[in-house]
Amino acid sequence: MKIAIAGAGAMGSRFGLMLKQGGNDVLLIDGWQEHINAIKENGLKANYNGEEITVKVSIVNQNEVPTGEQFDLIILFTKAMQLEKMLQDVKPLIADHTEVLCLLNGIGHEDVIEKFVPMEKIFIGNTMWTAGLEGPGKAKLFGSGSVELQNLGIGQEESAKKLAETLSASGLNAKYSDNIHYSIYRKACVNGTMNGLCTILDVNMAGLGATKPAHDMVVTIVNEFAAVAAKENVNLDIPEVIEHVETCFDPTTIGMHFPSMHQDLIKNNRLTEIDYINGAISRKGKKYGVVTPYCDFLTQLVHSKEEILGAK
Amino acid sequence: MKIAIAGAGAMGSRFGLMLKQGGNDVLLIDGWQEHINAIKENGLKANYNGEEITVKVSIVNQNEVPTGEQFDLIILFTKAMQLEKMLQDVKPLIADHTEVLCLLNGIGHEDVIEKFVPMEKIFIGNTMWTAGLEGPGKAKLFGSGSVELQNLGIGQEESAKKLAETLSASGLNAKYSDNIHYSIYRKACVNGTMNGLCTILDVNMAGLGATKPAHDMVVTIVNEFAAVAAKENVNLDIPEVIEHVETCFDPTTIGMHFPSMHQDLIKNNRLTEIDYINGAISRKGKKYGVVTPYCDFLTQLVHSKEEILGAK
Repeated sequence: MKIAIAGAGAMGSRFGLMLKQGGNDVLLIDGWQEHINAIKENGLKANYNGEEITVKVSIVNQNEVPTGEQFDLIILFTKAMQLEKMLQDVKPLIADHTEVLCLLNGIGHEDVIEKFVPMEKIFIGNTMWTAGLEGPGKAKLFGSGSVELQNLGIGQEESAKKLAETLSASGLNAKYSDNIHYSIYRKACVNGTMNGLCTILDVNMAGLGATKPAHDMVVTIVNEFAAVAAKENVNLDIPEVIEHVETCFDPTTIGMHFPSMHQDLIKNNRLTEIDYINGAISRKGKKYGVVTPYCDFLTQLVHSKEEILGAK
Repeated sequence: MKIAIAGAGAMGSRFGLMLKQGGNDVLLIDGWQEHINAIKENGLKANYNGEEITVKVSIVNQNEVPTGEQFDLIILFTKAMQLEKMLQDVKPLIADHTEVLCLLNGIGHEDVIEKFVPMEKIFIGNTMWTAGLEGPGKAKLFGSGSVELQNLGIGQEESAKKLAETLSASGLNAKYSDNIHYSIYRKACVNGTMNGLCTILDVNMAGLGATKPAHDMVVTIVNEFAAVAAKENVNLDIPEVIEHVETCFDPTTIGMHFPSMHQDLIKNNRLTEIDYINGAISRKGKKYGVVTPYCDFLTQLVHSKEEILGAK
C-alpha cells in the first residue's frame, strides 16, 4: 500500500517506521530540513524498545512533494496549528481514492480537513502509542500502544475496518470504533487539564496532583468539556473521565513526566496547541451557548505565556 | 495621641515614622524578631525621599505587648492572613475608647475585626502611600501619597473626620470618604488583576499588559468584582475601573514593577494574600449567588503554586 505520513515528528516517525517494516511503500513528509537531511543520508534511526535499528524510508520536505504520484492513504500527524498548511502542501498527492486518517491531538480537526478531502474519505482516530525524538533522524520508541479509528463519512464503516486491518498488519494494533468522538473527547480531557495546568504552574503531573486545588480544577474543566461534548451528542461518563484523568497524577506510573505542552512552551519556547484543546472547547462553547470560563481563562493564560516567552 | 501600629512592615514603618515625627506617642508592634531587635538597638532607619534618617520609636514583639497600657488608636497594617492573630495579641491594648483603623489590602477584613472591636470604633481606609523595607529596621520611603477613611459605625462620621485630621497633622494627607467601599473595591480590582496574573505568569505589569489576552482577562475579572460589589450596593464604574487598572501596564510609570504578590510568592516563597483578594470575591460570590469563575480559578492556581513552591 502506498502511504504518506504527513508530519514525521516523533509519532509520524513511529507510524512510518512500523508501516515500512510491515511492507508498505511509505513516504514521510515534514518541514524540518535537518531531520529530512538526516533521514535521507542515514535512514530513520530508532532506539526501538532498547534495540538500535535503522530503516531506509523516503522523506521529502512538504514544500517539495512530488507531483503525479498519488497515495492510497495519507496519515496526518502534524501539530494542530500546522495542519492546514500541510494539507495545502500535500494536495497533489490526494487522488479520488485517497483515504485520509487524522491522528492529531485535540478536537475539531475535521472542520479543516473537509476543506481538502470529501467526507467519505476522512477517518479520524486516537492513538495510545507514544514516541519521542532524540534529535534529527533519531526516534525513541518504547512500549506498546493501540489505535482506534472511525469513518466520518456515512456508510464507510467497511473502509474504516479495512484501514484498521492495514495498520494492524504492521503491528499498530488498530481497531474500528463505533464511537470515536467519545474516545477523542475523553483523551482531550486529559490534555485539557494536564497540559495547560502543568504548563502554567511549571510542574509535572504528580506535582500538580499533590496540590489541594488540583482535583477541583480537573472537575471543573472536565465538566466544561462534557457540557460541550453533550451538544454534539457525546455523553461523557464524567466521574469515569475524572478518574481516568487523575491516573496521570500517579508518580509511580507517568506522574513524574511533564506533558508535551510544557515541553513545547516552557522547555523549548514553542507555540502550543492550546487553541485545539481548551481553545476549541471555548469556541464550540460560544457556538452552542455553553459557558466555558475555565477553558477560556486557561487558553488566555497559555497564550499570554507564549508571548511573554517569545515562543515561536 | 497614643498610637499603636499593629504590623510594622514597610507601610507600618512609614506610618509609625511619620506619626512619631508628628509628635504622637507611637508603639510599633510586629512579629519579626530581627526587625524588632534592629529598631530597638538603632532606631528605625529610613531612606526618606533620598535623605538617610533615624527615628527613635518603641517597638515590641506582638507576643509581648504590654498589659495595663491602653491606646487611643490602633492602626492595623498586617498581611491579611496575620490579622486575626494580631488582633488576639493586641487585645490588652484595646480600651473602650480605642479606635481601630484598618488599612490592609483586600476585602472584607471588617468581618474579622468586629470579633474584637465594637463596630462604632472601627474605621476602614485605603492608602495610596508606598513603602519598602531594605532589611530589618531599614525602610525605603519615597514619593507622596494619601489616605481615605470612613467609619463603619453608624453616626461616627465626626470621629472619622477627626481621625483623618490626626493623620494629616503628621503629613499623611488623610481625608474622610463617604464611600470608602467604592475606593476599596476599586483598589481591589487592581490587586485582583495585577497580583494574581503577574504571579502566575511570572511577569511584570508592563509585560502582562503587552500580551494580547491581558485586556480581556482584566475585563472579565473586573466584571466579577463589580457583580459582587453591586450586591453590597457598591456600583463600580466598570469602564473607569478598567482604565484605572490598565494604567499599571505603562512601562514609563509603574509597569516595570512586579506586584507585591509576585515578590511574596515567586521571589520569597511566602504565602500570598489571594484569599483576601480574588478568594474573597469567590466567597462573597457564593454567598450572593454570583458566579466568579475567573476569581475561583486564579485563587486555585495561586494556591497550587504556593504548594508547588513550598511557600510558608
